[in-house]
Amino acid sequence: MTATVASHELYAKHSDTLQRALTAIAERGYWSAYPESPSPRVYGEGAASAGAADFRSYLGTDFPLDQPGDSVVATESSPFGIALDVRYPHASPDALIDAATGVLPAWRAAGPQVRAGVCLEILARLHEHIFELANAVQFTTGQAFVMAFQAGGAHALDRALEALAYAYAEQTRHPAAADWEKPAGRGDPLRMNKTFHVVPRGVALVVGCNTFPTWNSYPGLFASLATGNPVIVKPHPRAVLPLAITVRYAREVLVEAGFEPDIIQLAPEGPDEKLASTLALRPEVRIIDFTGSTGYGEWLEANARQAVVFTEKAGVNAIIVDSTDDFAGMCGNIAFSLTLYSGQMCTTPQNILVPRGGIETADGHKSFDEVAAGIAGAVQKLTGDDARAVELTGAIVNDAVSARIEAARGHGTVLLDSRTVNHPAYPDAVVRTPLILTQDSSQVAVFDGEWFGPISFVVATESTDESVALFRRTVGAKGALTAAVYSTSPDVLAAVEDAAIDVGVHLSANLTGGVFVNQSAAFSDFHASGANPAANAALTDGAYVSNRFRIVQSRRHI
Amino acid sequence: MTATVASHELYAKHSDTLQRALTAIAERGYWSAYPESPSPRVYGEGAASAGAADFRSYLGTDFPLDQPGDSVVATESSPFGIALDVRYPHASPDALIDAATGVLPAWRAAGPQVRAGVCLEILARLHEHIFELANAVQFTTGQAFVMAFQAGGAHALDRALEALAYAYAEQTRHPAAADWEKPAGRGDPLRMNKTFHVVPRGVALVVGCNTFPTWNSYPGLFASLATGNPVIVKPHPRAVLPLAITVRYAREVLVEAGFEPDIIQLAPEGPDEKLASTLALRPEVRIIDFTGSTGYGEWLEANARQAVVFTEKAGVNAIIVDSTDDFAGMCGNIAFSLTLYSGQMCTTPQNILVPRGGIETADGHKSFDEVAAGIAGAVQKLTGDDARAVELTGAIVNDAVSARIEAARGHGTVLLDSRTVNHPAYPDAVVRTPLILTQDSSQVAVFDGEWFGPISFVVATESTDESVALFRRTVGAKGALTAAVYSTSPDVLAAVEDAAIDVGVHLSANLTGGVFVNQSAAFSDFHASGANPAANAALTDGAYVSNRFRIVQSRRHI
Repeated sequence: MTATVASHELYAKHSDTLQRALTAIAERGYWSAYPESPSPRVYGEGAASAGAADFRSYLGTDFPLDQPGDSVVATESSPFGIALDVRYPHASPDALIDAATGVLPAWRAAGPQVRAGVCLEILARLHEHIFELANAVQFTTGQAFVMAFQAGGAHALDRALEALAYAYAEQTRHPAAADWEKPAGRGDPLRMNKTFHVVPRGVALVVGCNTFPTWNSYPGLFASLATGNPVIVKPHPRAVLPLAITVRYAREVLVEAGFEPDIIQLAPEGPDEKLASTLALRPEVRIIDFTGSTGYGEWLEANARQAVVFTEKAGVNAIIVDSTDDFAGMCGNIAFSLTLYSGQMCTTPQNILVPRGGIETADGHKSFDEVAAGIAGAVQKLTGDDARAVELTGAIVNDAVSARIEAARGHGTVLLDSRTVNHPAYPDAVVRTPLILTQDSSQVAVFDGEWFGPISFVVATESTDESVALFRRTVGAKGALTAAVYSTSPDVLAAVEDAAIDVGVHLSANLTGGVFVNQSAAFSDFHASGANPAANAALTDGAYVSNRFRIVQSRRHI
Repeated sequence: MTATVASHELYAKHSDTLQRALTAIAERGYWSAYPESPSPRVYGEGAASAGAADFRSYLGTDFPLDQPGDSVVATESSPFGIALDVRYPHASPDALIDAATGVLPAWRAAGPQVRAGVCLEILARLHEHIFELANAVQFTTGQAFVMAFQAGGAHALDRALEALAYAYAEQTRHPAAADWEKPAGRGDPLRMNKTFHVVPRGVALVVGCNTFPTWNSYPGLFASLATGNPVIVKPHPRAVLPLAITVRYAREVLVEAGFEPDIIQLAPEGPDEKLASTLALRPEVRIIDFTGSTGYGEWLEANARQAVVFTEKAGVNAIIVDSTDDFAGMCGNIAFSLTLYSGQMCTTPQNILVPRGGIETADGHKSFDEVAAGIAGAVQKLTGDDARAVELTGAIVNDAVSARIEAARGHGTVLLDSRTVNHPAYPDAVVRTPLILTQDSSQVAVFDGEWFGPISFVVATESTDESVALFRRTVGAKGALTAAVYSTSPDVLAAVEDAAIDVGVHLSANLTGGVFVNQSAAFSDFHASGANPAANAALTDGAYVSNRFRIVQSRRHI
């Protein structure tokens, strides 16, 4: 640590941001540190084009990462159909682990404040490159640009800062040292000085996902880094670039602050290498953050027993439709949620539970078919124009999703078919609009598992009571990241809230405007609950950070 | 919840205590809520005899617990050789789980503040019965009376309050509700109200141990209870009474506060019933706190996968002796630690690592043999008089410990033999003084596992450097609850502190007075670190409480 002064300066430089974030996590009202609008009025005239150029400069080249490698890997292909061909240095598990364990003592010794300063500088650096990041997210995940900028850029940075704030708060809730003076009757009191060392668990592994490489990885990455754990970032083979850019700038900041860059390493894998599994079972790896399939998440939980494992897996998100005083607003809001990123969000609703006798609205009674048609019509409206549609849907992340759309058609009555859209700018992009099916509640086996992608079911139930029962059953068994209810009845709202508490899922009520069930706001909304099978943790709370380090104390008499 | 008013009053009644405890856990200096002196000047003239009488009134009777049972069990036998024969109502796992899940919703709905008030009232009630508790701890564990009063009474209550304070702080670090107002350009801001529900994980199981039935069980018990989880207390078959008394008074308070008593239940088991294992694998059980053997702790961690499992297991505690400016103080302090409760504390030192060339002291050089003899002599002095000895040693908790003393004699050179002491008051008590062996560092296989009981090894090492290496090796592999070092060299103290940080064990330096390595003070010292194989958690920190509940939010537009 030759540059302790520099790293202390980083804390001072960013302490206002940290303090504001600490206030935000305690209040959980609205706050954001990184503007979500990509407008030139916010980011300056040349920012967008410069970021796009920076992104394009990576394509077809060796990614500029100062990590030694035994080979190079290039595994990405863009949902937008453009050639990526970025080559990343590949390292062996031994090399990665050795490097991480080697740098641990210095990063541990830096302490919470210096680490927070360095992490905040990394976030600031990433923010400077937000357009470059956004392009990388867009072209690896298939997200439309604005979403990639927001979810993949500004919101990801907000979530990172939120995790960092929790990590800092947790590490500093105890003093670094304390005097202890115990009265001893008539004699002198017993006096000791105690030092409380924050000790990281060990090496942290972050396993990224295809759809949200930054948003879903940043909280764990920065929570582990801030608590002193060197981090190995294993990106999804199809979404390496956003995390490579992240690691590149993080290493740059670490070196500037006088640390070894291997405090964070990229671990891209070759085809069928199963690098995540190899790393996950190493005894040195003591923390794992994973977002992805239920199967692999459960494998990690069952097998990586030496580590604390945080998983976000699949769920079956549901909406209970009971009644509404804004039928058009309801249909439009639901339609937006189904359409955004072609339903490829872990938070996209899947099952829309509607009484088969219909519902009451401010415009009078609507039959089941009218409700279903209202939602389908709203989706059609959002996706009718190709050029506008693609800015919402983005592209399909991989062939499995396209195949799932085909397969789903046979599992209900097609209410609105998915159509292929020609992307005006990217002729080889794979774009599909949402498929909406109707189903009967008796066919629960069809819709009680996740159909990841733009596939949803409007389910005819006997009554709202049956909708609630079905909600309890499916979410209780398979979990969910989100749930929503539409009702004008306080009793129904209360009953659904009780059910949501019982099955442990976050609930949104009567969303008819500019807030959507599949979006959560950093510093205010908890993402996932850790209280149902869809995830064993939340972004972000005390439990998400508190076991990433331990306190080791020493004491001696004064 | 008919008595919400009463339960709110409990919070008000005890809020000063809670606030003081919250300050204490943030400062970690000296504080205690429950006086540790059993003196009549503190507790009143008749308190001790009344408590003893209350204890005796249980003997040979059906314990007064208002739980239904399918049979009665009586499994205790006192290390002091007195007849206990207390009969407890036994219930089936189904009955216990059904009762616990049935009362969960009301306890969850009570909220953090009401639950804190009820838990604080339970602690106050237990404190009123501290002599009764102390007698129960003494006669089931073999602890001498003063220790049973302190560790089993006052300190256990302090640790419970500490855990309760952490649990309260964690549940209230977020507001119960928050308004969120996001600017929306020129339009009206988006406004939502969000409710953050504290949701317990489920049923909590506390598995008690033989030696410290209250001290080791209370933190988990109260942390789970305070966070809304109904608790099933499965005592060690040989130390049921202290936890039966605890559950009895806790249920009494719950009923007074308007709650169902089954929010806490006693689950005594019959011989060879393996009730802990049956309960631990039930899907409804979502939290387990266990203190005991490494084998069973690891079984729980590996098999009770549906639960968050907190374990304190065995360790190999060590002292590195390098040099001292108070040779007599050092020997006396170590001797006290070896003698207290006949070395039957999880925190008792086992391996005393001394350079075979001897050490420097203020009285000049002392050879290895002189150091070993100094420690042995100090133990002899403490245990020479039977009547005084038993007040320190107490009795041997079970036959396995007596047998282990016999077996240990063959595993080194006997420096001080264990002797049988006739207890002046309890002729059938099983009392043994410490056995101290010398060993060579090359025979590490002899002393690198736990020899639970009054068995320790003075190990001759090549040098302090080898002592540190041996310390790293044994603690790194097998874990430890405590470690100590004696040195006048700042470099050696720093090197040992570095080693302690690396292997994750709490360290005490140069204890020569009234503080002992095997004692930790609530609100200041962390007990166990969670950073080595001896325990996966600490008493008590954020990580100990934060995952005992989850936040489930709901949001709606304002």
